[in-house]
Amino acid sequence: MTSALTPASTPVRKHFASDNYAGAHPAVIEALGEASRGHVTAYGDDPWTARAADRLSDVFGAAGVFFVFNGTAANVLGISLILRPYEAVICSEGSHLNVDEGGAAERIVGCKLLTVSAADGKLTPELVSTRLGGLGDEHRVQPRVVAITQATEVGTCYTLDELRRLSEFCRANGLLVFMDGARLANAAAFLGCSLSDLSARVDVLSFGGTKNGAMGAEALIVMNPSLRATVPFQRKQQMQLASKMRYLAAQFNALLDDDLWLRNARHANAMARRLANGAAAIPGVGLSQPVESNGVFATLDPALAEALQRDWPFHIWDPAKHVVRWMAAFDTTEDDVDAFLSAIRTAAGALT
Amino acid sequence: MTSALTPASTPVRKHFASDNYAGAHPAVIEALGEASRGHVTAYGDDPWTARAADRLSDVFGAAGVFFVFNGTAANVLGISLILRPYEAVICSEGSHLNVDEGGAAERIVGCKLLTVSAADGKLTPELVSTRLGGLGDEHRVQPRVVAITQATEVGTCYTLDELRRLSEFCRANGLLVFMDGARLANAAAFLGCSLSDLSARVDVLSFGGTKNGAMGAEALIVMNPSLRATVPFQRKQQMQLASKMRYLAAQFNALLDDDLWLRNARHANAMARRLANGAAAIPGVGLSQPVESNGVFATLDPALAEALQRDWPFHIWDPAKHVVRWMAAFDTTEDDVDAFLSAIRTAAGALT
Amino acid sequence: MTSALTPASTPVRKHFASDNYAGAHPAVIEALGEASRGHVTAYGDDPWTARAADRLSDVFGAAGVFFVFNGTAANVLGISLILRPYEAVICSEGSHLNVDEGGAAERIVGCKLLTVSAADGKLTPELVSTRLGGLGDEHRVQPRVVAITQATEVGTCYTLDELRRLSEFCRANGLLVFMDGARLANAAAFLGCSLSDLSARVDVLSFGGTKNGAMGAEALIVMNPSLRATVPFQRKQQMQLASKMRYLAAQFNALLDDDLWLRNARHANAMARRLANGAAAIPGVGLSQPVESNGVFATLDPALAEALQRDWPFHIWDPAKHVVRWMAAFDTTEDDVDAFLSAIRTAAGALT
Amino acid sequence: MTSALTPASTPVRKHFASDNYAGAHPAVIEALGEASRGHVTAYGDDPWTARAADRLSDVFGAAGVFFVFNGTAANVLGISLILRPYEAVICSEGSHLNVDEGGAAERIVGCKLLTVSAADGKLTPELVSTRLGGLGDEHRVQPRVVAITQATEVGTCYTLDELRRLSEFCRANGLLVFMDGARLANAAAFLGCSLSDLSARVDVLSFGGTKNGAMGAEALIVMNPSLRATVPFQRKQQMQLASKMRYLAAQFNALLDDDLWLRNARHANAMARRLANGAAAIPGVGLSQPVESNGVFATLDPALAEALQRDWPFHIWDPAKHVVRWMAAFDTTEDDVDAFLSAIRTAAGALT
Repeated sequence: MTSALTPASTPVRKHFASDNYAGAHPAVIEALGEASRGHVTAYGDDPWTARAADRLSDVFGAAGVFFVFNGTAANVLGISLILRPYEAVICSEGSHLNVDEGGAAERIVGCKLLTVSAADGKLTPELVSTRLGGLGDEHRVQPRVVAITQATEVGTCYTLDELRRLSEFCRANGLLVFMDGARLANAAAFLGCSLSDLSARVDVLSFGGTKNGAMGAEALIVMNPSLRATVPFQRKQQMQLASKMRYLAAQFNALLDDDLWLRNARHANAMARRLANGAAAIPGVGLSQPVESNGVFATLDPALAEALQRDWPFHIWDPAKHVVRWMAAFDTTEDDVDAFLSAIRTAAGALT
Repeated sequence: MTSALTPASTPVRKHFASDNYAGAHPAVIEALGEASRGHVTAYGDDPWTARAADRLSDVFGAAGVFFVFNGTAANVLGISLILRPYEAVICSEGSHLNVDEGGAAERIVGCKLLTVSAADGKLTPELVSTRLGGLGDEHRVQPRVVAITQATEVGTCYTLDELRRLSEFCRANGLLVFMDGARLANAAAFLGCSLSDLSARVDVLSFGGTKNGAMGAEALIVMNPSLRATVPFQRKQQMQLASKMRYLAAQFNALLDDDLWLRNARHANAMARRLANGAAAIPGVGLSQPVESNGVFATLDPALAEALQRDWPFHIWDPAKHVVRWMAAFDTTEDDVDAFLSAIRTAAGALT
Repeated sequence: MTSALTPASTPVRKHFASDNYAGAHPAVIEALGEASRGHVTAYGDDPWTARAADRLSDVFGAAGVFFVFNGTAANVLGISLILRPYEAVICSEGSHLNVDEGGAAERIVGCKLLTVSAADGKLTPELVSTRLGGLGDEHRVQPRVVAITQATEVGTCYTLDELRRLSEFCRANGLLVFMDGARLANAAAFLGCSLSDLSARVDVLSFGGTKNGAMGAEALIVMNPSLRATVPFQRKQQMQLASKMRYLAAQFNALLDDDLWLRNARHANAMARRLANGAAAIPGVGLSQPVESNGVFATLDPALAEALQRDWPFHIWDPAKHVVRWMAAFDTTEDDVDAFLSAIRTAAGALT
Repeated sequence: MTSALTPASTPVRKHFASDNYAGAHPAVIEALGEASRGHVTAYGDDPWTARAADRLSDVFGAAGVFFVFNGTAANVLGISLILRPYEAVICSEGSHLNVDEGGAAERIVGCKLLTVSAADGKLTPELVSTRLGGLGDEHRVQPRVVAITQATEVGTCYTLDELRRLSEFCRANGLLVFMDGARLANAAAFLGCSLSDLSARVDVLSFGGTKNGAMGAEALIVMNPSLRATVPFQRKQQMQLASKMRYLAAQFNALLDDDLWLRNARHANAMARRLANGAAAIPGVGLSQPVESNGVFATLDPALAEALQRDWPFHIWDPAKHVVRWMAAFDTTEDDVDAFLSAIRTAAGALT
């Protein structure tokens, strides 16, 4: 057996463009091998799936746990449990759901997203209330779910108190709460709370495995028991039912063993912290957001950004405000961070 | 690190309920480990994806190759490249697209499926022409694509001549052809032809990895160059864009190495053949379809089926006609077949 | 003011192609003029709408009454009150919903239609039960509503006993009932029952004005109170909210005055009866369905059909079985019928 | 025949809440009566429809003209001719399409609306260009059509030069242009240009009959010949195909006769102008937008607005900015305006 793919052609230096650029944690790969024993019933009626779902149900205090392939699907399936097409989602302008899912919610759920501008990525009762004007008016879509992201797309975290306040407002206004938890592990690590603290006042949420060291697996966590019954049918119809489900589940089992999910998240957060601390000390570099997870949102002179990007790919997050995004992953090392900091310093020096 | 999942709790005896009950081929698992080196660009701009796509493009003579998570998605994405919602798919009543995808085509594409009854699972120009009556009538959906399955859901294969005749009819009537290739490898193995022989007169098709020994990966093969441009956007919107795409691609690289896909398919077909030959010799057992891939569709007295199912799970395919389905997988052994045949003989004997 | 449309260019002979070929009853046109007084609140908050909705609520014993523009919309809006996209409609193969609405249900509701063949256009518990096999199976769409047509598309009527038996079966199986009443008036006239007799065991139905002498207006009659709340939002989203709603309502007020709806329906039925009686006496002409409303489904030698169609347009309903459709309208006269019968006799004579 | 609806129960005083509160012009009602002669082919193959479509094609220089029931449908059908679901509409935040159509575009077309804030309701190349950042990025919806409203929802009009500049920008950027012409007549009247001047650089537009004196009828005007072919199928699937089409067409014939559409629009514009002039002279009343059609957007002390609304219903357009909306209709008289002005003066005086 020959493979034309030589190791040399593979990028090996870790950069900070995305936590999706990392591979899978070795324990995840090992778990896939272990799950390859024998024949089991397809579509989730197998011991790996039962075990992962049970463990996640316990951890979250959930009414139901369902695995899907990616984060976009977790978001869309999650809100589809709640919404009829004439109902709407209130979310932030910068939310993944609104910006980065190719219009999946509109096409699959048929619903409108009512966006609000949230500089720090976090919705508040005040912001949500600006979109409630049309309630009861047949000409307007009817707000029915508030979708938040934890940690947010700009690396911030809702405190437990902010979550409580927002969810109480939602409950009082007949709104359900969906939480995009693509980086929920990082939020739990930052806040020092349990996953069930984060899910306590939420109707449905996702728990992201992929950015946390999985190969590709997300869990939809249904907290509100009344929303559970339609999941199997909607998941299938939304093309998210894996035939060899054990392989999605096995990834979560690996992440749950010995709290690997938490260790991975803590480490990624620490690397972001290290990068932020180092970068903030470099003249011409600032931080545009507090560092509360594994992302660093820095302000950078465009010339510096351009010089750096030659060797270190990363996203210009907000060109108008000169904000760039750097993400640390579970496998980012202190050396990776320091090498990048050194590159920033060199580039900054060359420009002055 | 401890895992509560003991090997003992895992079913180890291989049965014949579904080719999805098998795990992944060891070479596939190994390839996942190999693909876990370093950071690479997410969403498919990585060497594993480039290599798998290039190889499949070569093998099929394709205009474009795109990876998705499962077979339902490959079918729905495939037809969505062609159809506007007022257009329709002509397919067989028993097709996976029509029966087993939870209404995904209707929801995601918004289209109607115009079904025809096809006893052997195969469409013909004559059958297709029965659904063309409404062409040009604004009150009717407009047939635009003919969707066939190769090998079919009942284990038969279109011959190359049948494919040619059907596609010529379609072309002459302004219809495009989509081919559900969830078991395309088994068809190629049975027909002794190349994959490009099968794709030659088709506009879009899928090439199934999952049933062929992958963990979970399907390739959408776009033959008609005019259909290629929208795939990236539609794939994303249909929630099928993997962030760590290398892990879908790596599975196909493993299947392509040394023609593992073909060896797996040939073996599964041979095991089905062995099972069919043995079963047909048992009094009270007949074959309802020719065995042209890895499935055996047998007629069985209901009492015999019920007795057998206690230890050997399988599907009653058509209760009215007493047809059951037995599927062989890439890892089915001669011993597995013989053990099952022995069980059938014993059960049949006990009933007489 | 000049109009280039001269009366001479208007077809004046009434034919039997469709009850939609008739214009509006003079009382309807008069009512539109009467409704043109002054300014009133748009979108249905006006006295004409209140009055028509109240009267129809009384007549049907309804939980809510809503006006829409056409029959396709009434059907689609009606089933959308009940269905989530993974749920399905059981209906007859020949139903308007399935055949003549351009795939609106699939696109707008996103649902699949599970069809059964019903020679006389009528569903039975036995026919419905053939489509319940997939209940609870996540791979299959979930049957949730049975859609029937009264009078059917082939001119037959469900008896009250058949309706009762079917609805009891549905209730026992967790299915709701939708009734397409595009020709409900003709059914009430034939059965000699009240409209509330017809709606008694139905969850949602339509009451067609257009074919009954209106210019273009249909009423959605919601019987099941739990389905009422979403109608305003869904109607608007489905593009069926008229701004000058009074003009839809006024048409129904005209039809309700002095039971014009019933007189129109009785007359159309009687004309169909007269046509059927006359035609059945002509050699080479048979009846393929009992005449239970305003339609005559006759069997006719294709050569005779072709000869007749030169002067009298009508639809070949089923080319394979030589069935043609003739429809009588509210304004069809005995002379119209007799002229057509004479033409049939002449054409039949010329062919022998 | 008796009608329980007494004239006394009908509001007769004309107010300024909406141009939809008016009834239909007497010539329109008369035309409906004239169209009620005889039987004609349904669904638009009749002389009234041919004539109206031909006349509008001539007037606009159109590739095709199609009638639909209401403005929401005209907008949704219009953009559905252009868009695949992953493509997006760029429109103003306050556009009818975005705010007042109950999410119809999202549900029916499945597309996202990319909104920009436009204080005067008008898009510019600069505003449009702010939403083009994601072009080519598979994670983002792909802008494909720019939807503008003429006259806008705040009563302003694009000049011909502004239209030319915007359409040239669109063409240069691969964007098509859709124009919501619910009040196109008012724009033509204000600008003193022909309807073909307005449609010249547009791909699809609507021409609103309802607000111009029709009972309920809108025309979809297809300028770009490549977009014409799918209209019949999409219109039917979108539940907008009238069976007795002659009655939609007849309304347009009435509006076209002797330029009734233009006379109606000029008159409504003049009444708005009269109202604006009078109101602006009242202390505490200002104009928030130039009066360029039949709408007056005034700033009003909330206490004054509240006092006035007791007898004169109208919409608070923007509560934060104290903007109210007053609309004149084709049948608003100088006396109506003067009575309202007198009421404003009285209320304003009572508050000081």
